[in-house]
Amino acid sequence: MLDLPNYQLITPSALIKEDLHGARAKCLQRLVRLDLTVPETVSLSVPFVRTISAAKHIDLGPLLTNFSSLPILSVRSSPINSEWGGPSTVLNIGMNKEAEGWCSDILGQEAAKKIHLTFIKSFACDVMRLDDDIFNIPELTPETALKVYEQEMEEEFPSSIEIQLLEVLRSMSREWQGTSARLLRASKGAPEDAGLGLVVQRMVFGIGKAESGAGVIQFIESDTGEKKEVGRYLPQSQGRNLLVGNEMAMFLTKDARGRSLEESQPKIFTKLRMAGEVCFKGLRDEMQIEFTLEGGKLFIIDAVSTPRSARASVEIVTRLAEKMIITKEEAVLRIEPKAVAQLLHKQVVEGAVGEVIARGIAASPGATFGKLVFSSIAAQAAASQGESCILVRRETSPEDIRGMHAASGVLTERGGNTSHAAVIARGLGLPCVSGVTNIEIDTKLKCFVLDNGRVFSEGDVVTLDGTSGEILVGELPLTPAGVGESFDKLMGWADTFRDIQVRANADTPQDVLLAKSFVAEGIGLCRTEHMFFEEERLTVLREAIFADNNVDRNAALERLLPMQREDFFEIFNIMGELPVCLRLFDPPLHEFLPSSRSGIQQMAEAMNLTAKEVQERIESLSEFNPMLGMRGVRLGITVPEIYDMQARAIFEAASEVRKHSGIKIVPEIMIPLVSAKQEVSLVKTRMDAVALEVSKEVGHEVEFKLGIMVETPRAALRAGDIAEYVTFLSFGTNDMTQMTYGLSRDDSGRFMSAYVAQKVFPEDPFHALDQTGVGELLSIACERGRGASPNLVLSVCGEHGGDPESISFCRNLGMDYVSCSPYRVPIARLAAAHIAINNKKLENI
Amino acid sequence: MLDLPNYQLITPSALIKEDLHGARAKCLQRLVRLDLTVPETVSLSVPFVRTISAAKHIDLGPLLTNFSSLPILSVRSSPINSEWGGPSTVLNIGMNKEAEGWCSDILGQEAAKKIHLTFIKSFACDVMRLDDDIFNIPELTPETALKVYEQEMEEEFPSSIEIQLLEVLRSMSREWQGTSARLLRASKGAPEDAGLGLVVQRMVFGIGKAESGAGVIQFIESDTGEKKEVGRYLPQSQGRNLLVGNEMAMFLTKDARGRSLEESQPKIFTKLRMAGEVCFKGLRDEMQIEFTLEGGKLFIIDAVSTPRSARASVEIVTRLAEKMIITKEEAVLRIEPKAVAQLLHKQVVEGAVGEVIARGIAASPGATFGKLVFSSIAAQAAASQGESCILVRRETSPEDIRGMHAASGVLTERGGNTSHAAVIARGLGLPCVSGVTNIEIDTKLKCFVLDNGRVFSEGDVVTLDGTSGEILVGELPLTPAGVGESFDKLMGWADTFRDIQVRANADTPQDVLLAKSFVAEGIGLCRTEHMFFEEERLTVLREAIFADNNVDRNAALERLLPMQREDFFEIFNIMGELPVCLRLFDPPLHEFLPSSRSGIQQMAEAMNLTAKEVQERIESLSEFNPMLGMRGVRLGITVPEIYDMQARAIFEAASEVRKHSGIKIVPEIMIPLVSAKQEVSLVKTRMDAVALEVSKEVGHEVEFKLGIMVETPRAALRAGDIAEYVTFLSFGTNDMTQMTYGLSRDDSGRFMSAYVAQKVFPEDPFHALDQTGVGELLSIACERGRGASPNLVLSVCGEHGGDPESISFCRNLGMDYVSCSPYRVPIARLAAAHIAINNKKLENI
Repeated sequence: MLDLPNYQLITPSALIKEDLHGARAKCLQRLVRLDLTVPETVSLSVPFVRTISAAKHIDLGPLLTNFSSLPILSVRSSPINSEWGGPSTVLNIGMNKEAEGWCSDILGQEAAKKIHLTFIKSFACDVMRLDDDIFNIPELTPETALKVYEQEMEEEFPSSIEIQLLEVLRSMSREWQGTSARLLRASKGAPEDAGLGLVVQRMVFGIGKAESGAGVIQFIESDTGEKKEVGRYLPQSQGRNLLVGNEMAMFLTKDARGRSLEESQPKIFTKLRMAGEVCFKGLRDEMQIEFTLEGGKLFIIDAVSTPRSARASVEIVTRLAEKMIITKEEAVLRIEPKAVAQLLHKQVVEGAVGEVIARGIAASPGATFGKLVFSSIAAQAAASQGESCILVRRETSPEDIRGMHAASGVLTERGGNTSHAAVIARGLGLPCVSGVTNIEIDTKLKCFVLDNGRVFSEGDVVTLDGTSGEILVGELPLTPAGVGESFDKLMGWADTFRDIQVRANADTPQDVLLAKSFVAEGIGLCRTEHMFFEEERLTVLREAIFADNNVDRNAALERLLPMQREDFFEIFNIMGELPVCLRLFDPPLHEFLPSSRSGIQQMAEAMNLTAKEVQERIESLSEFNPMLGMRGVRLGITVPEIYDMQARAIFEAASEVRKHSGIKIVPEIMIPLVSAKQEVSLVKTRMDAVALEVSKEVGHEVEFKLGIMVETPRAALRAGDIAEYVTFLSFGTNDMTQMTYGLSRDDSGRFMSAYVAQKVFPEDPFHALDQTGVGELLSIACERGRGASPNLVLSVCGEHGGDPESISFCRNLGMDYVSCSPYRVPIARLAAAHIAINNKKLENI
Repeated sequence: MLDLPNYQLITPSALIKEDLHGARAKCLQRLVRLDLTVPETVSLSVPFVRTISAAKHIDLGPLLTNFSSLPILSVRSSPINSEWGGPSTVLNIGMNKEAEGWCSDILGQEAAKKIHLTFIKSFACDVMRLDDDIFNIPELTPETALKVYEQEMEEEFPSSIEIQLLEVLRSMSREWQGTSARLLRASKGAPEDAGLGLVVQRMVFGIGKAESGAGVIQFIESDTGEKKEVGRYLPQSQGRNLLVGNEMAMFLTKDARGRSLEESQPKIFTKLRMAGEVCFKGLRDEMQIEFTLEGGKLFIIDAVSTPRSARASVEIVTRLAEKMIITKEEAVLRIEPKAVAQLLHKQVVEGAVGEVIARGIAASPGATFGKLVFSSIAAQAAASQGESCILVRRETSPEDIRGMHAASGVLTERGGNTSHAAVIARGLGLPCVSGVTNIEIDTKLKCFVLDNGRVFSEGDVVTLDGTSGEILVGELPLTPAGVGESFDKLMGWADTFRDIQVRANADTPQDVLLAKSFVAEGIGLCRTEHMFFEEERLTVLREAIFADNNVDRNAALERLLPMQREDFFEIFNIMGELPVCLRLFDPPLHEFLPSSRSGIQQMAEAMNLTAKEVQERIESLSEFNPMLGMRGVRLGITVPEIYDMQARAIFEAASEVRKHSGIKIVPEIMIPLVSAKQEVSLVKTRMDAVALEVSKEVGHEVEFKLGIMVETPRAALRAGDIAEYVTFLSFGTNDMTQMTYGLSRDDSGRFMSAYVAQKVFPEDPFHALDQTGVGELLSIACERGRGASPNLVLSVCGEHGGDPESISFCRNLGMDYVSCSPYRVPIARLAAAHIAINNKKLENI
């Protein structure tokens, strides 16, 4: 190991490393290397800072020799990652009676006294932790302040710069190790042993006789990324704290509202602009610069990466790449895939403050506001009036889908990240907060009650933030959703690097259009039963379910055929040459039956039955564990007429598209919930027969590809056998997770947060793919499937298809594509590009 | 391939093989080899018989040369397996006017005419398929009969023996290939291409001047296996058909009811006895012999293995082994493990005929009769009156357990082989028929209605046959259950061959006693929550579930502690040195809450709550998929007080037994539904802490072994990690099957029979372990577990633990024991012996 010095003057050649001295120290060295005028700065290493808190005495004399004689100093924190925060800056260390004297010569007596007094108070309160009330004395002078301090501390105020500096360093080191600082940075992802460096810098006063002052400048609009100087400058001031909201602060560029630096100090302003340009090129980023003017001379005190929205980030990285300052690969890598979610939805404006009344799981990103409604019907009524509304339900069921379409946000009392509400909302791009347990919903009275008794009723307006999981009172300001040109450019670059395809899960022609707008390379999962939730179709489907015999059932199915065919026609038409994978009917039949008394009554009337008969029929179809019941291919084998009808609709639609547009459609048909190869061979036989029939009718050969959705552990284990009959396997990782863990996603909410908090599970496995359990089954299936059939197409179409880590895992298994909800397609495209680029980097090492 | 002759005279040296000539031909050769007097017999090979039906003409001249001049012949079927049945015997082939003449000389005119007439009718009806009504003519003579035949057939009656014989052979060959014969033998397990041989034998008439007649003799009582000559003899008769129920037939041994062969023909009787003895030794089995006396001379016509009950089988094989005729290994191998189930329960007497009103799944073996009752309360009331009753429920739930204890049989409308009713009934040794779908139960009117409208009400008596799955009207005669000395002897031999241990699943002290009586080598699974179903305990448990805070919960649990401790004390006391594996609390809490309105009302009163409050609480605990919900270790981690209490009860009980009896009990504690190693390490930490506390209190170290129940696919995959923390893994193959297939055992009934019938699944995987799917997970877990910890104890404690094929699979994976319900323990012991013996045979090849 290197014998690391405890501190070093930051020079172009000093050995300053980010992981040993912190991000600020490293950034300051870069500024020095760019020849910007930075006051002398000494960097204290992380190991040294760690020892300071415990050390009894440290000789700081040698450190001080780095500065000109009689310096006044500042100390700033330099944590390894700038996002972890750190103790606040302390200014003017070294002030004492003597220093006040010579400051008085340069800055004038009043300024010198003010600086001295400011330091005494700051040392007393921030360093020695005294209560700042003790200085509440009218016309306080440095002398009085020193007396107050000595009375309180029962010791003299240290006048020596060495002692002052040591106390400051010690205080900052201790603060970093305190519990509240630990918790705060842990919440930002810092590890247990997160390191803090410190930088000691010669003060440039900003107060003085020629033009003096302090300011902050950045060169873009933080929200949009637009090129523009933004900031403030306050003459005769120190540090950045006074700038915030100070009416005395000047604008930087010409401004009708008041004075500007550009007008009053045009040369300085030009220098600042040039400094910005130098940083942009040299630091390969947009920087926010803290500067001080001392006697008309410009000093760069500090610089940080300019705070920015996701949208601005995209603007900046594309600009950097287009100016050839960074490569396109790096531009792509600099955008976190998860941040893209923010781009696609409205968000609460950063810094906007509202009253939070409830919190839940951030189940679908984006923010919205609207009137509370407590039923799907009310949501539809509001939508028909053009009113924005938030649908509040205990939990949602397929019966709520039309209400969800009409609402602008969804709030549920029950359920987690993969509840019905969450999945559907993400598919619709609708903000959703689920599992809001601190409210009690009364659907009869149309209201919910908070723990504290406060009541919110239908019509009350709230803001729902699906990105943070918060519910707030009233309307909060929202940023518009928008992706723009730069985003398209960046995604275009990403697509050139990517080596795994991205498709979308989309169930209806509307969803498919959306998926295409997000540049999905095909539809990876079309749940064909979702088309039945429309009222007219639901009624016919129910007739098929209730049919006593084959004749009645087939009659009902025949009426569904043209409806399904029309949907498939539209979908094929939209996607054109791109592949579409249609999953055959999957859910248990009872999901399509009403559960409410009024629903049953209505159905009875429509079917000419008594309510009791309907009720009995529903009961006879009910199941103990519907997840593990009569659904998927089990239904397909027991009531084969449904699959036959669907196959015919698919083939006829494909043939019609071919007639209209000349494009030869080869649909992919996927069998759900397979657990044995015989299931596949039976369904294959019937599909082939239907294809042959339709071929004869339409006069040309109907082609299709058959595959299965791998959801049961058994299907994964037997993938080798099954591969004989199919051309593709698509993993339904959600169901696979449920079965591998023996864990229902709908019921896991009750203990999942406790489990993750206690680290029983490192993460919710419905959120991040469990690589060692579920992942091993995937790996076994890929290996056996490809072993039996080398050209087998492999993919993931479960919820995990949009999760960057899971995508990486799938790519490494050699999968051909991932499929996710349309709004996650850009995230997946970007994540896939990251994986490919990082992998190439590794290969080049 | 051997050039097989179409037919051969059966001599000691002829090449007669069972799989080429059938079982009867082979048996006849053995009789010939034993020097018994068998009339000349020619065996026709299976391939030859197959060609006969299609062949236009076959020259039977050469075949006939095997017999003395002018023979009269019989033809009998000789299927490869005698259980497959076959066409009936045809006698007296070769009779015509001429033969009638010479028969008349030997037997007298009347006898000759009778024989001739019988043959004409038999040929017309059995061979040429004419309606037997045509011979309904008073004083029919052979001459008239021939005329009737010729009128009907419009051709002459064949007088040549060659033509007669060819027609008989052709008719039998065709009958074998007909649909009804196929279906019949398929139901007995015959393959598609099951082969039929035929034997042609010279007739010995049984009608004649010196002592003549036909009879059947066997040397044991079929029901008991007791040594005793049983049979009938009818002078002046042919074949065995006339013997059945014929009042003219003689007894064999001296009998007060009438004449006997022993008295009238003591020499013949002695010869028959000797023939029996010769067969017993030579054929190494008890044989039933068909014999004919012709002119005072004894002929052995045929012999078959004596029909026998399971009990008699055991008697016979132990007798054979003790006489050193067969080895003990062979004795053990000759008893099918599944047949043992018949020994342990009452059965409907073979041949008893009753009116079957309904059929279902034979879910728990044994037969019983009693009054129908439709609620647990009614069952308990009946039991308290000493009345036998059959509990009829749509399906059972834990609330019905007390009723099941009181009933002598259970009938359910829903559910399959592994439904709650089936599992509990097998555990209790109670006959059960489940999934009786052709009845409609009305619990209010306390009756069920058959499809045909017939109503059975509370109090009506039926017989329930859990071995066949039938429900019959009234009381049928039942054989007593009984195992006896020979059984114990045989099982003792079996135990010496066995190389895998057999434990029992037993939940209560009563069950444990039963398990011990069946010589279980330990308790492999004690479901500790089953002890809570008793009313007093259930109330306290419900208080614990409803507790709002830890204090109330702990108070309730503290009241449960002594109850559990007492149970464990009794169990340890009964088992002594033998190991006991206790599974911690497993089911979801809502299983312990009432579901009926009256139950909720009662609970509300007991808890001083409103019914609405109770209802709400129950709803809040309800789950979408309880199978995959908040149960097992998830409960143990979220509400750890329950496991703490159970651990304390276990340790205290073990310590008390040690104080009382000096036996050091080392309990095995099993954690259910594990899916991650952290779950195990968390529970282990708490168990260790409780053990330490109790150790201090009792003044000696409390030892225990910790293990998990492997039920989730993930636990199987991660067995290597988990093995670090535990000393044993026990596979819960039932839940593992549910999760591997994604198939709820409670819901699978709706399509499982269709699935098995269509061969989608070769067998119900809840019945026979799915070796290629679930089995692979077991295999992975065994390998990884032992890889990480070579002394890891492995076992199966699911329903499959009692299934012979599954036991074989587990033994081959190197498992230490299987555990099954007490009544299955003898079956498992025997099956395990079979496996070991067969394996040794293979090794010696």
